[in-house]
Amino acid sequence: MNSHDPTITDPNLYRVIFENERVRVLEYRDEPGDHTHAHRHPDSVMVTLSAFRRRVASGGRNVDVELKAGEVRWVGAQEHTGENVGDTASHSIFIELKEPAPTAAPTADVPLGPSVP
Amino acid sequence: MNSHDPTITDPNLYRVIFENERVRVLEYRDEPGDHTHAHRHPDSVMVTLSAFRRRVASGGRNVDVELKAGEVRWVGAQEHTGENVGDTASHSIFIELKEPAPTAAPTADVPLGPSVP
Repeated sequence: MNSHDPTITDPNLYRVIFENERVRVLEYRDEPGDHTHAHRHPDSVMVTLSAFRRRVASGGRNVDVELKAGEVRWVGAQEHTGENVGDTASHSIFIELKEPAPTAAPTADVPLGPSVP
Repeated sequence: MNSHDPTITDPNLYRVIFENERVRVLEYRDEPGDHTHAHRHPDSVMVTLSAFRRRVASGGRNVDVELKAGEVRWVGAQEHTGENVGDTASHSIFIELKEPAPTAAPTADVPLGPSVP
């Protein structure tokens, strides 16, 4: 845990709902217009529980992401900010992997936001 | 992958929707009365996308599990069969961890089915 932990940067949006030795699971809920401070995700799997329209930004780059409820995406370790640019509240789950990656990808190679499936 | 892989024992119910070096993600869908053959889960996180009423059995023990949509549960590595004992179709996601557990729990200590949150 560090100062870029999303439960510290945005405790009103990110909440720990499960944790053990191997994973930490976050629930994320927001409203249209809500945006997060810069925060870091370790390698994670995201599952959307609602439709989701989001602008993810990092280091001058940004990407718009549009997903339906019930979709699953890999989120490679990265630091970013996010903004709900849709017109509905969003609800999603992040399963964070706590072990170090077996082979670390150079950060520049990790797609910003969720990877294409 | 082995003969107790659920995508081999029950390919009509379990489907791989994502896989990389660290995780494999399965989508599970069934109808009331459907049941699986004996299969093995590695340490996994389950996310329900629908209500879920299920009888999980292994080695003469069984446990009934009832969850709402949008719930998250740890499933410690285990072998079992499952049966949809509800009256609705069910839909869920399993995020399987591919790396070996840092400290293996004795199988007898792993709760059958999803752990209590």
